[in-house]
Amino acid sequence: MKNTFGNSVTVTLFGESHGSEIGAVLCGMAPGIPVDEADIAAALARRRPTADTGTARREPDRFRVVSGVFQGRTTGAPLCIIIQNDNTRRNDYDSWRGLARPGHADYTAYMKYHGFEDYRGGGQFSGRMTAPLVAVGAVAVRALAAKGIVIGTHVAAVGNVKDRPFEDLAADIAALPTAPMGMLDEVAAEQARVLIKSAAAAGDSVGGMLETAVVGLPAGVGEPFFDSVESVLSHILFSIPAVKGVSFGAGFDFVTLRGSQANDAMRMQNGTPIALTNKNGGVCGGISNGMPLLFRVAVKPTPSIYKPQQTVNFLTGENATLQLTGRHDPAVVHRARPVADAVTALALCDLLALRYGTDYLGEKT
Amino acid sequence: MKNTFGNSVTVTLFGESHGSEIGAVLCGMAPGIPVDEADIAAALARRRPTADTGTARREPDRFRVVSGVFQGRTTGAPLCIIIQNDNTRRNDYDSWRGLARPGHADYTAYMKYHGFEDYRGGGQFSGRMTAPLVAVGAVAVRALAAKGIVIGTHVAAVGNVKDRPFEDLAADIAALPTAPMGMLDEVAAEQARVLIKSAAAAGDSVGGMLETAVVGLPAGVGEPFFDSVESVLSHILFSIPAVKGVSFGAGFDFVTLRGSQANDAMRMQNGTPIALTNKNGGVCGGISNGMPLLFRVAVKPTPSIYKPQQTVNFLTGENATLQLTGRHDPAVVHRARPVADAVTALALCDLLALRYGTDYLGEKT
Amino acid sequence: MKNTFGNSVTVTLFGESHGSEIGAVLCGMAPGIPVDEADIAAALARRRPTADTGTARREPDRFRVVSGVFQGRTTGAPLCIIIQNDNTRRNDYDSWRGLARPGHADYTAYMKYHGFEDYRGGGQFSGRMTAPLVAVGAVAVRALAAKGIVIGTHVAAVGNVKDRPFEDLAADIAALPTAPMGMLDEVAAEQARVLIKSAAAAGDSVGGMLETAVVGLPAGVGEPFFDSVESVLSHILFSIPAVKGVSFGAGFDFVTLRGSQANDAMRMQNGTPIALTNKNGGVCGGISNGMPLLFRVAVKPTPSIYKPQQTVNFLTGENATLQLTGRHDPAVVHRARPVADAVTALALCDLLALRYGTDYLGEKT
Amino acid sequence: MKNTFGNSVTVTLFGESHGSEIGAVLCGMAPGIPVDEADIAAALARRRPTADTGTARREPDRFRVVSGVFQGRTTGAPLCIIIQNDNTRRNDYDSWRGLARPGHADYTAYMKYHGFEDYRGGGQFSGRMTAPLVAVGAVAVRALAAKGIVIGTHVAAVGNVKDRPFEDLAADIAALPTAPMGMLDEVAAEQARVLIKSAAAAGDSVGGMLETAVVGLPAGVGEPFFDSVESVLSHILFSIPAVKGVSFGAGFDFVTLRGSQANDAMRMQNGTPIALTNKNGGVCGGISNGMPLLFRVAVKPTPSIYKPQQTVNFLTGENATLQLTGRHDPAVVHRARPVADAVTALALCDLLALRYGTDYLGEKT
Repeated sequence: MKNTFGNSVTVTLFGESHGSEIGAVLCGMAPGIPVDEADIAAALARRRPTADTGTARREPDRFRVVSGVFQGRTTGAPLCIIIQNDNTRRNDYDSWRGLARPGHADYTAYMKYHGFEDYRGGGQFSGRMTAPLVAVGAVAVRALAAKGIVIGTHVAAVGNVKDRPFEDLAADIAALPTAPMGMLDEVAAEQARVLIKSAAAAGDSVGGMLETAVVGLPAGVGEPFFDSVESVLSHILFSIPAVKGVSFGAGFDFVTLRGSQANDAMRMQNGTPIALTNKNGGVCGGISNGMPLLFRVAVKPTPSIYKPQQTVNFLTGENATLQLTGRHDPAVVHRARPVADAVTALALCDLLALRYGTDYLGEKT
Repeated sequence: MKNTFGNSVTVTLFGESHGSEIGAVLCGMAPGIPVDEADIAAALARRRPTADTGTARREPDRFRVVSGVFQGRTTGAPLCIIIQNDNTRRNDYDSWRGLARPGHADYTAYMKYHGFEDYRGGGQFSGRMTAPLVAVGAVAVRALAAKGIVIGTHVAAVGNVKDRPFEDLAADIAALPTAPMGMLDEVAAEQARVLIKSAAAAGDSVGGMLETAVVGLPAGVGEPFFDSVESVLSHILFSIPAVKGVSFGAGFDFVTLRGSQANDAMRMQNGTPIALTNKNGGVCGGISNGMPLLFRVAVKPTPSIYKPQQTVNFLTGENATLQLTGRHDPAVVHRARPVADAVTALALCDLLALRYGTDYLGEKT
Repeated sequence: MKNTFGNSVTVTLFGESHGSEIGAVLCGMAPGIPVDEADIAAALARRRPTADTGTARREPDRFRVVSGVFQGRTTGAPLCIIIQNDNTRRNDYDSWRGLARPGHADYTAYMKYHGFEDYRGGGQFSGRMTAPLVAVGAVAVRALAAKGIVIGTHVAAVGNVKDRPFEDLAADIAALPTAPMGMLDEVAAEQARVLIKSAAAAGDSVGGMLETAVVGLPAGVGEPFFDSVESVLSHILFSIPAVKGVSFGAGFDFVTLRGSQANDAMRMQNGTPIALTNKNGGVCGGISNGMPLLFRVAVKPTPSIYKPQQTVNFLTGENATLQLTGRHDPAVVHRARPVADAVTALALCDLLALRYGTDYLGEKT
Repeated sequence: MKNTFGNSVTVTLFGESHGSEIGAVLCGMAPGIPVDEADIAAALARRRPTADTGTARREPDRFRVVSGVFQGRTTGAPLCIIIQNDNTRRNDYDSWRGLARPGHADYTAYMKYHGFEDYRGGGQFSGRMTAPLVAVGAVAVRALAAKGIVIGTHVAAVGNVKDRPFEDLAADIAALPTAPMGMLDEVAAEQARVLIKSAAAAGDSVGGMLETAVVGLPAGVGEPFFDSVESVLSHILFSIPAVKGVSFGAGFDFVTLRGSQANDAMRMQNGTPIALTNKNGGVCGGISNGMPLLFRVAVKPTPSIYKPQQTVNFLTGENATLQLTGRHDPAVVHRARPVADAVTALALCDLLALRYGTDYLGEKT
């Protein structure tokens, strides 16, 4: 299936880091969903590097909605958003050609594409490809919000600096768009900023962790086996470059829990069964249980660092030392936040459309 | 897509815990692969509960290969394996009907299927449904082995008892079929056994962690974005009941690593680029790099425990206390080992067939 | 995708002509649909050869519903039906091995499967594989009927004997289950029977045409481009062995029509727009328009004939003359009728589930 | 799946008749295929209306290859081609809003999209959407040609004017690019032109038939049941607007043939089995047999005619008379020729990639 994700609602990506344009096609969204370019612009802005903790490549992310929207609302036809690549530098890639940057896809792309790959700036493997995903994801986020389904992702950790956990979900999620570093705890955010700048100063980079909550998802969504909520979400979360771990609810903490600690006791509340804890992260048997979805995503440190690295030239078959120059992020975990929101929204739209039909997320005339 | 996984090579499951038969259909496997019923029987045996650490439900797992095999080899037609359910008890489920077992799918199934679900023994949500997956997976495991691709899963942890990590992969994987508790360290295995029995004696259960290695996968397999190796593997791994976390290579340890620690330096070795470490778990940019695949899976404690639990009756809308009886595993992590092998093999066959064509895994006349 | 069809509702086939069992797995059907084994038996009976115009192979089509049904209704879990192969003859296939029967799949299967294919009785290419399709299709037919969507297929032609066209659709469809030869006109039916017997006496076979009508399908179903109603239906109709043509509405008659003749004028009727004619066969722009679906299917003559035929032995690479013996149908068009009904029902269930959600066809508690 | 077609090689469309741009994303094509913009331009030119037999809307079809091509060859990444819509008229659609044009998708789109559809010029239902399909199809055509697989489509009929059948396939296909009206017989071409002009003068339109041949496809391609060559090709052929019938080989002529006439006798020729006739159109059992693929496509008359038509206003629920103005084709069958070539090429690339792997159509370094 390659570059298309989803069954009822699908997203297809195209473009490369140094092409003229990149884009995404979102198919199967219900008709009648309001599309506000300000939503898209705001989501793209959250993805852009910040002044002191990000790459010096500055992309204004000028986008246009090419299809699928008419008179301010989705038509039900494929919705394509195209973003300009403005700030590409085309000069210096040939001199590196053949040098595998450790942790990057240079060598694997070469093995897959036999040297025909566009190697400039990572080509289709670039983190830049998450921009169109964020753009169409903003449409999905808006559609879900109209149904009372709200998504929030905070930076749960940068290196060993930890954010506080979610507490009051509604309030915490509402605070996230303006939260420094995407963290709930301002002190932790400041520590994270210092840590990133310190790593950058050392020519190095740092990893981090995201935690996402989804409030308002009805119980009964997801499929029992191969298309469990966890399967579908992890599939698209692991598509995000640099993601190397995904866990739901207590996740890897389940390893050391007893069943009596891991099970979420249930009680009736206002006529609805609820769980008193949420160790299962809102999913039992692959299907949503009406509690908030909760999952964590491990993001590896940016592989682009300025320290000299041992590597190979896969064209010449010789050992080499790599000394990167150019513009790179010392951390991407905070920039990955809107990407996590976007892919979560897209996957949930797909599951909801499968469950309730292609009209579910739209409005009727 | 529901109960079918895969694009080029697909697997479809059917059956319920208390039906007469359960089965799996494997489509798209190359023709000419030897099918040895002893392989299938051995894999099923590894999945069965052991005398002192498992459920008292004893299933002989009598199976038959119904289609897709002729004269001892795959024909290329859909390969269906059916397993008898022999040891079902049909008497006591109606008395529990409506009581949501915490951590189980009773309530979510009810919300999805409106009360029409087969609630006996978990129905299609039962861990029993992994048996046919293991059976067809054994065919995939054999096909991969003929190409020099070998899969091994050890129990990396049971509760806080940790196995030693993989060292000599070839030797460790070869030792696994007869390893006690599926652990590489015999002392840890004994401690794990004691822990499980102790939890069982307390009417409780324990979680654990699996670690899987795949040796021999060529570089250049997987897709760059939505069908990355990590995406495809995590999708099917999260399909396994009780799995709540999946990570590749350093996984969640990446959170606290610097880029200079996380990047795998490369060198030429016998004319081939290799990585000196394997923090990326054999995958860069979603594509295999020729190093062993390495990933970990968190398995939650069996939700079936004998301690009284607070819950609800979702049919009557009343609070209730649940006191389980019956036959349950105090731990499933070691029984999940052949399931992890099976789904890994199935996912890799799919990715390899996509890459190299539907004949790749077979033999030519 | 191989042996699975569909997106929201899927069907997977397994088995071979001379295996012990054949079957189908139907996934994604809504919960709560009544499943009556008499429906299934009746549909299978319509597919069986009749005394004087069919093969001497007599299959009682003993079937069992293995999963997905509980207390007489679908559960929402995969529904598997398995049929016994009782009347297989295993003795005489090896002597023919290598001889390509003209019009059959012997040579193409060999080129695809390199000689590993099960060549006995056509293996997975046998028309026998339509039996499980008819069985699960009967569940789909019943589900649609509960929504007022009724399917009927008549034998529109056998050789140059033509049935009368559909007139009063409701009455005609109601009459079909007991119509001789599946034809609306009794005289034509008798002529067709004579024609088939005459061809059989000459060691030959005859082709035919089916015409299917679907009443009650709501307007607005289908996708505008790649998954148009015509695309989805033709896809599964061409899966039926021996089908070589599919057309909708006026079909190939459109070639010689003018637009003024081809366009269906519209009028309001009881508050709903209707078409005064139905040249478009109920589909405009790929989407249903609320008029009856109407399509025709060309079925080629059974390739198994008793006349000597020029062919090759693809194992030895020599020319050969084939003189078939054994039990073969002189016509299959009338036996294909329930198959057309079944695949139409399955495809429509898929399109309806996509449009209205996976609960649409079921009942709520 | 909506607006994506294919499994291994996929194509996704986006855009509307009156949007600023329309496009297609082709994923899964092998790396290393030469991409020549002249090929694309030539294919688009064949699709454009001709001076005297086509719509007055003149689109220069200015296109750009946005991604997936580097240094003149495919990279293996998604290949996106975007075409400008230059000649749109935005003024007059609102006055018609609600009037269902008979034979068009106005009413069905309204029923599917609840009035949110972009109704200008047919929106996504416009024949204009075939332009990007032709553009990416040209890449597929070129890739196949490099493997010796050549596709040719002639206009087999316009109304009751028939072209001669294919004779010498290689020569006939070579002659097609410059053949008048896309017909092999020049006299028939002139008669067709007269017929179309005569229909246009009468404010009417005419239907037609295409016949496509594919030479060089190896034997053994296609899947035995649901993804037969016929299923996959018909699926995408019926996606083309105005196509209402598809048949393979003798097609609907099989209805009146005997088996002894319908079976293609076989002989050895230069060590390869061939068929002496090609009634089966190159496909037996759903799998290619090495003979040329042959199929026919019925194209209905353009529904846009200038005669007054009875219709309804589905917004007001009133009967109405429609008097179309604007720019419309009196026939589209000849313009559909490059579309048939394109979708045939795309479908075959998908089947070949599934069979032989994603590298098959490319070149190695």
